[in-house]
Amino acid sequence: MPHRPFMLGIAGDSGAGKTTISSGIARLLGVERTTQICVDDYHKYDRKQRAALGITPLNPECNYMDIMEQHVRLLAQGEPILKPVYNHSTGTFDPPVYVPAPRAVEEGGRLVPRVVVLEGLLTLYSPELRSRYHLKVYLNPEEELRREWKIKRDVAKRGYTPEQVVADIERRMPDSEAFIWPQKEHADIVVRFYRPPGYDPENPSTLNVRIALRHSLPRLNLTEVLHLADEEEALIRLEARKNADVLDITGNVSAEKAQALENLIWEALGPHAEQFNPELIGTFWDKAGQSYPLALTQLIIAYYLVKMRELAIQKGVLHYA
Amino acid sequence: MPHRPFMLGIAGDSGAGKTTISSGIARLLGVERTTQICVDDYHKYDRKQRAALGITPLNPECNYMDIMEQHVRLLAQGEPILKPVYNHSTGTFDPPVYVPAPRAVEEGGRLVPRVVVLEGLLTLYSPELRSRYHLKVYLNPEEELRREWKIKRDVAKRGYTPEQVVADIERRMPDSEAFIWPQKEHADIVVRFYRPPGYDPENPSTLNVRIALRHSLPRLNLTEVLHLADEEEALIRLEARKNADVLDITGNVSAEKAQALENLIWEALGPHAEQFNPELIGTFWDKAGQSYPLALTQLIIAYYLVKMRELAIQKGVLHYA
Repeated sequence: MPHRPFMLGIAGDSGAGKTTISSGIARLLGVERTTQICVDDYHKYDRKQRAALGITPLNPECNYMDIMEQHVRLLAQGEPILKPVYNHSTGTFDPPVYVPAPRAVEEGGRLVPRVVVLEGLLTLYSPELRSRYHLKVYLNPEEELRREWKIKRDVAKRGYTPEQVVADIERRMPDSEAFIWPQKEHADIVVRFYRPPGYDPENPSTLNVRIALRHSLPRLNLTEVLHLADEEEALIRLEARKNADVLDITGNVSAEKAQALENLIWEALGPHAEQFNPELIGTFWDKAGQSYPLALTQLIIAYYLVKMRELAIQKGVLHYA
Repeated sequence: MPHRPFMLGIAGDSGAGKTTISSGIARLLGVERTTQICVDDYHKYDRKQRAALGITPLNPECNYMDIMEQHVRLLAQGEPILKPVYNHSTGTFDPPVYVPAPRAVEEGGRLVPRVVVLEGLLTLYSPELRSRYHLKVYLNPEEELRREWKIKRDVAKRGYTPEQVVADIERRMPDSEAFIWPQKEHADIVVRFYRPPGYDPENPSTLNVRIALRHSLPRLNLTEVLHLADEEEALIRLEARKNADVLDITGNVSAEKAQALENLIWEALGPHAEQFNPELIGTFWDKAGQSYPLALTQLIIAYYLVKMRELAIQKGVLHYA
């Protein structure tokens, strides 16, 4: 019997911050103790063929969804995969890469399930995919913010002009609405970064974040933790709604306040906290800065992840032969 | 529940005639009704890396055997795969190709399992691989003949000089002996082409063939069929041995005799014979000629395959939801 890992699925539109969040979580848990995979490489067509067909990679029809589902299932079952690799520079495919079986890792003298972080445009698209995750996250930044991020990234890392990126966003818009955005409904955690009044794009660390913690999640002690951290100010607020607890963190939270909250979450993790690697928490993908709302978002997802993994072990859902 | 196919595994050393045999069988069964796959593409290293490491592709250590086993298992379970592709010209990897789920095909008004023909150097290497096939074939030509064939093919199709091919064969010799040849023991059918006295390489259709039909096979009426075809001459002989029935067919069998035998096997297949496509049977890979022993070898393998598939359907081993 292979080791079954803990499966974290992260979905969101292009530029929504998937890599920033998943890399942050992998760093927190220890990069070498985590398997981080982007599942955006299952395209049926290369860039030229897509242009000829007038289809975007956001469309499930443009992807081997059956193979994506198969690979996510195989990883969930503790098996290795040979993953296709799409090359954003050439617009075609590179040789596939071997992803080793996600074997358990040692933590505090015992074996615990390795965490597999799967991020992608369509990670939460089908029931078959969704059934494989223990925790599902959707990144839902303000649309203006997503565009700003996507332009910044595609210009810096993929060699496009801003005009090309904007045209690409517009062309993909119907597919974003049809295929990507509805995945939000299936997430346990929805993360929404949004701009405060008078927001300055040069200083993204001032962004606010709203984190919806859906009631599909186990009810953890986070409420108490948060209230303790923020008794008199309104910079961190937790509000109970019908389907979710909604946590608001404003970008101008003070360093002391944010660090106090980080420490509280840290302590709440108990023995697992030792495993966490706080270095670079809350760092942007381009390493241009750090943000407390980002750091707290990563930390809160990691907190749920560790707690849910513990529950899964206790319930025998994640077991070893 | 996906459709489970009939799995035929064909192993043999480089140049042993795997593609000739498997293409012949696919043509007999109908190319569009068969899934033909070469599983020699699961290398861990490209040509440059192999040279640096001093490892040959015959060595299981040079291959992702776990992924090869996984893909063979997935096909046997009726699932699609995304198969890696090794490029013999560049010595590196091409984009992977999608192999659709091997769904059942219609035959005589009913659905029967599609035949998946898997050929490769290591097809029968591990117990896990062997457990997936319904019929296992090993190609074991006289070593001199294999070298002749490999030189001819690698010069014509892969752009090597004869000297390069000979050096390659020598370098691979220890691995051939260690990893490839022992697979013979696990086959149900072992095919050995060998040279008659005074053999002329320019006329390969005169080659003899010896086919060992191991007792792991169901005992079919082939004996009767063969005796009927060859009452007085010794050009086709069937000999019962301890572990196998051994069939000898000499290359100088007359056209009439060979065709009579072809027809008898054909008729013995009953309603399935309609599905067979006799065109190009016994054709060499380079289409340079045809050979009765080759034609009869392909036909006998196809005969066992159809009969065993029928048995598997009757026993409910290959069932559909």
